[in-house]
Amino acid sequence: MTPLVSIIMGSTSDMPVLEKAAKFLDDFQIPFEINALSAHRTPEEVTDFATHAKERGVKVVIAAAGMAAHLPGVIAAQTTLPVIGLPIKSSALEGVDALLAIVQMPPGIPVATVGINAGLNAAIMAVQILALTDEDIAARFSQYKHDLAQKIVKANEELSRISYKYKTN
Amino acid sequence: MTPLVSIIMGSTSDMPVLEKAAKFLDDFQIPFEINALSAHRTPEEVTDFATHAKERGVKVVIAAAGMAAHLPGVIAAQTTLPVIGLPIKSSALEGVDALLAIVQMPPGIPVATVGINAGLNAAIMAVQILALTDEDIAARFSQYKHDLAQKIVKANEELSRISYKYKTN
Amino acid sequence: MTPLVSIIMGSTSDMPVLEKAAKFLDDFQIPFEINALSAHRTPEEVTDFATHAKERGVKVVIAAAGMAAHLPGVIAAQTTLPVIGLPIKSSALEGVDALLAIVQMPPGIPVATVGINAGLNAAIMAVQILALTDEDIAARFSQYKHDLAQKIVKANEELSRISYKYKTN
Amino acid sequence: MTPLVSIIMGSTSDMPVLEKAAKFLDDFQIPFEINALSAHRTPEEVTDFATHAKERGVKVVIAAAGMAAHLPGVIAAQTTLPVIGLPIKSSALEGVDALLAIVQMPPGIPVATVGINAGLNAAIMAVQILALTDEDIAARFSQYKHDLAQKIVKANEELSRISYKYKTN
Amino acid sequence: MTPLVSIIMGSTSDMPVLEKAAKFLDDFQIPFEINALSAHRTPEEVTDFATHAKERGVKVVIAAAGMAAHLPGVIAAQTTLPVIGLPIKSSALEGVDALLAIVQMPPGIPVATVGINAGLNAAIMAVQILALTDEDIAARFSQYKHDLAQKIVKANEELSRISYKYKTN
Amino acid sequence: MTPLVSIIMGSTSDMPVLEKAAKFLDDFQIPFEINALSAHRTPEEVTDFATHAKERGVKVVIAAAGMAAHLPGVIAAQTTLPVIGLPIKSSALEGVDALLAIVQMPPGIPVATVGINAGLNAAIMAVQILALTDEDIAARFSQYKHDLAQKIVKANEELSRISYKYKTN
Amino acid sequence: MTPLVSIIMGSTSDMPVLEKAAKFLDDFQIPFEINALSAHRTPEEVTDFATHAKERGVKVVIAAAGMAAHLPGVIAAQTTLPVIGLPIKSSALEGVDALLAIVQMPPGIPVATVGINAGLNAAIMAVQILALTDEDIAARFSQYKHDLAQKIVKANEELSRISYKYKTN
Amino acid sequence: MTPLVSIIMGSTSDMPVLEKAAKFLDDFQIPFEINALSAHRTPEEVTDFATHAKERGVKVVIAAAGMAAHLPGVIAAQTTLPVIGLPIKSSALEGVDALLAIVQMPPGIPVATVGINAGLNAAIMAVQILALTDEDIAARFSQYKHDLAQKIVKANEELSRISYKYKTN
Repeated sequence: MTPLVSIIMGSTSDMPVLEKAAKFLDDFQIPFEINALSAHRTPEEVTDFATHAKERGVKVVIAAAGMAAHLPGVIAAQTTLPVIGLPIKSSALEGVDALLAIVQMPPGIPVATVGINAGLNAAIMAVQILALTDEDIAARFSQYKHDLAQKIVKANEELSRISYKYKTN
Repeated sequence: MTPLVSIIMGSTSDMPVLEKAAKFLDDFQIPFEINALSAHRTPEEVTDFATHAKERGVKVVIAAAGMAAHLPGVIAAQTTLPVIGLPIKSSALEGVDALLAIVQMPPGIPVATVGINAGLNAAIMAVQILALTDEDIAARFSQYKHDLAQKIVKANEELSRISYKYKTN
Repeated sequence: MTPLVSIIMGSTSDMPVLEKAAKFLDDFQIPFEINALSAHRTPEEVTDFATHAKERGVKVVIAAAGMAAHLPGVIAAQTTLPVIGLPIKSSALEGVDALLAIVQMPPGIPVATVGINAGLNAAIMAVQILALTDEDIAARFSQYKHDLAQKIVKANEELSRISYKYKTN
Repeated sequence: MTPLVSIIMGSTSDMPVLEKAAKFLDDFQIPFEINALSAHRTPEEVTDFATHAKERGVKVVIAAAGMAAHLPGVIAAQTTLPVIGLPIKSSALEGVDALLAIVQMPPGIPVATVGINAGLNAAIMAVQILALTDEDIAARFSQYKHDLAQKIVKANEELSRISYKYKTN
Repeated sequence: MTPLVSIIMGSTSDMPVLEKAAKFLDDFQIPFEINALSAHRTPEEVTDFATHAKERGVKVVIAAAGMAAHLPGVIAAQTTLPVIGLPIKSSALEGVDALLAIVQMPPGIPVATVGINAGLNAAIMAVQILALTDEDIAARFSQYKHDLAQKIVKANEELSRISYKYKTN
Repeated sequence: MTPLVSIIMGSTSDMPVLEKAAKFLDDFQIPFEINALSAHRTPEEVTDFATHAKERGVKVVIAAAGMAAHLPGVIAAQTTLPVIGLPIKSSALEGVDALLAIVQMPPGIPVATVGINAGLNAAIMAVQILALTDEDIAARFSQYKHDLAQKIVKANEELSRISYKYKTN
Repeated sequence: MTPLVSIIMGSTSDMPVLEKAAKFLDDFQIPFEINALSAHRTPEEVTDFATHAKERGVKVVIAAAGMAAHLPGVIAAQTTLPVIGLPIKSSALEGVDALLAIVQMPPGIPVATVGINAGLNAAIMAVQILALTDEDIAARFSQYKHDLAQKIVKANEELSRISYKYKTN
Repeated sequence: MTPLVSIIMGSTSDMPVLEKAAKFLDDFQIPFEINALSAHRTPEEVTDFATHAKERGVKVVIAAAGMAAHLPGVIAAQTTLPVIGLPIKSSALEGVDALLAIVQMPPGIPVATVGINAGLNAAIMAVQILALTDEDIAARFSQYKHDLAQKIVKANEELSRISYKYKTN
């Protein structure tokens, strides 16, 4: 089965953040792969991955990294596939270093950045891109958005049970 | 009983911060409601709430949200009621993201912003606005301010019992 | 004519930011006053102003200050009226100092803070509060919100005239 | 001609940043539209746009906004299309407010964020997504990446003409 | 015994930071007082304190406060005595709010600011000022500086016992 | 004439900020000296200055520096005199680097820090310290504070001439 | 045995961060020394160290400090040896104060700064400098870089054992 | 002539900052080369450069980049030579993005970072490293440090000519 989404992390310590992404793709029945590659420790493997991802059938890359987070940008530089950048909070600086090192790419090489530690959102963005040409995925994603709203409806039911004397709902 | 203050939170995980607001309004015997509505997950419900709040008799809205906190601004865009924005600390960024996403509204659509996680202050500001036209509330609020000062007086009594050899009070 | 809104600035150098507020209130035919009072240079006058504003008939205070912006909080401490805080960009720190010194008030004494240099929004918030009990003001404010939307409609007409070969609207 | 990319800006003052995006799409012969819609001033139009964009044939939305930049997130909340968020530098805070208000979206509703004022990169990311299913666009984009590298080659030729006594290249 | 140093805190929750200051003054046999006064909750008492501190014989004021820390500046505004400002870390913002709200005073009203939570340094600065005209205090402070250096000497003795094969000292 | 205040700057490019300090001391008829000494370029001279300043009769040191501003701390380390630190805005970072490098001194060695580029406030703090033991200076400083308030009174007179239809003062 | 690398820390509380540096140098069989010296508490010893380090045979200095971290810069000012600065996270400000106080040195006196709490990287940089003229060290360092990559290879083997239904690698 | 220092810039727009570096190396008669290579636009050339720099005789690399500045780290990942990172101020974020993207490298791959736009300091650090094994360079650098101090001496002569009535030096 060819992976449509390739998740790359700069360090296996990023795995807890990426589990939400992996689980989401699995729930959506989207073939994916997950690997660790470091822009700094295995630069050749990164080049090899980036330059061949498209021909292997990968459609979207999710690249996660912390600190001076170069991985997403380095991959983006070597592929024409869209790269979703996921800044990891892993240092003294609350993830701000990773956010800026990912989002502030120079003209010509964008990385589609999601929030700090937002593993789930990285996977959702990948699904939204795949849904453009896959009606099954599109249908499942529409259902997902509908379910999100239902969670709030249920939350309000719980809130309605909080009792204060002057509370009116 | 018509609610005068409507508390809206972007996520039920914001409830601990809002409990101080709810309790304060309850103590002041001000009818209020509390609901969860998400600018992102239930946009239609937000629109429905915002466009009808005034005709239902609501006078002030307190809207709490974290991260890219759009809820207060989105409500403010769709009502003429004053909206008090309450930034919630819920991410890697210590609530700075929510503070900026609430306070830096564009010209034409202000949100009256209070401090990060300042649930109590949001409720107090609502009371101050209601007190403009309700002498009972005004009287109770004057008493509240007086009591605040008394707490400091008592605190000093405790401090006077700390003993150092060269301490003179 | 009793002023309903009192605009206080920490320094007359803040006047350019406040002119938008003054003009907006004037357009709305809301009686207002505008004065300079410094929490640091004229503390007695600030106390005098804050403790008597309500009995003079003022309903809402707009207090603008830059740098270590204490004025809004010091006024809020001494009145039960709602105080709208307006952080002024006037130092090396882009107004962040003023924003934090105004919005991060301690529990018990809120200041309803608007964006950095957001003079217009400060006045609009004052109008929204006054509109709660004045149907004339409420009607004019509803019209104002409607007009805001019209500006965007006109802006789109201009955009439609920008021509690119592949532009479709 | 159906637009494949829809560019939305929160204010027409964002146009200079978006011109790079428009020109890039035009050069790539990708049908696009460009409009101003404000999450705060025209919330109904935003809802109307977001809920119908997909059925109109739009594939990717580019949403640009400054300050408390809610537009990208509000659109993302109401469509299943991928939304590229473009933070605009338009306030005292150097665009940091817009960046955080766009990238830090809550779980469930990602916005694919590019750098501050990075209009060109927003358009490139849109092209990369479209290229997934359009071989013509893919071919043109591969050429574009190749040309980027050539610019550096030419730049080096210029550098080689800078002369210092101890410069060896 | 007349206090030479008056320590004022905005909230008794600041006491742990101030204990280092109190202990240092006690060790130096400098008469001091310690009280809680809030710029926001007891503004009149603050005015009363500030306007009479000098005639009571106080030489230096140490004022500690967190969040929108107005206390040091408000006292400085109402006395000619030097005021040492001590920013307290007490909110989401790591004390940066208090630091900026204290140090960025407007022209004419300085506050001598020490580091965030630097209770000891606030007391030392007070001692350095008193030492200008009291030879006994000056002598004890010279001894204190000498002792500080000795601590490092002892620390090095401990380090010399750490053993690595290639460590040479 | 023995200088009572010694102004040290890390670079002569800081002179424009320090001129306000020099002029203020001159107006107050306080003997002072002004020199450039660099913690990094002339470390021996800094040591020589710091270790002998007290015996030369200096009472207060004002030390100004930008960027990684070590000068105030290095002087403070080598004298028992109070050192007032003045952060200079001289780099990409708006003076934040200098502010933190001055105010965040370790336990034992405080620097009394004033705001970024606050040359005037540095001189005023020096005067406030000298005024503790010099009745002439104290009297002149009381007059100065009184004059500050008068400026606001005059400013209000100008404001009263601004005319809007609904302006009431 | 003459130390080639001298590690200096501003406080022995920095030892946990420096242990990684010491262990790395020990593993590389590079003679080193480790001492505590404070720019603020033992300025003379710092001067003595810095001015004699080169003649003692030291090639590289690693200087670690937190808060207003002056130690690396003060040493760099007094030696011609390369100084590697290591910012320590030790205050409310997450190490940002130390980072700026080290990296933003004035023109003429650079400090080669590594990341916050990056003790290992400080030692590696020292080794890279020594490797320029020592083939043994160079060979061991090449091996080290190779081993870094192997860790990632092993990490991927672990990742390959994570099982999701739609995971393809 | 073999270059000992190789200056690489991410964009030729960084040239003004690097001219100070080039001139300094030229003055020191150190053979150097200067090229533009982009981690994002010419990744293969960067790999080619980094993997062969050592065997070509280069001793130190200076790598300058702005925004999400990956170039220094990407080079450091592929060479055992010491890499000096120079953050360029080139975006809305005052160079903070580049600083963090360079200095916060992961464990194993340090970059010796100098201040924002500190082109001169990057060259000086290179010289300090080369001076470790070249007595001629070492002698010239000692002279340079001496001259730096002389500039301050001359600066003081100018300051001594500033006249105020109460200025005593």
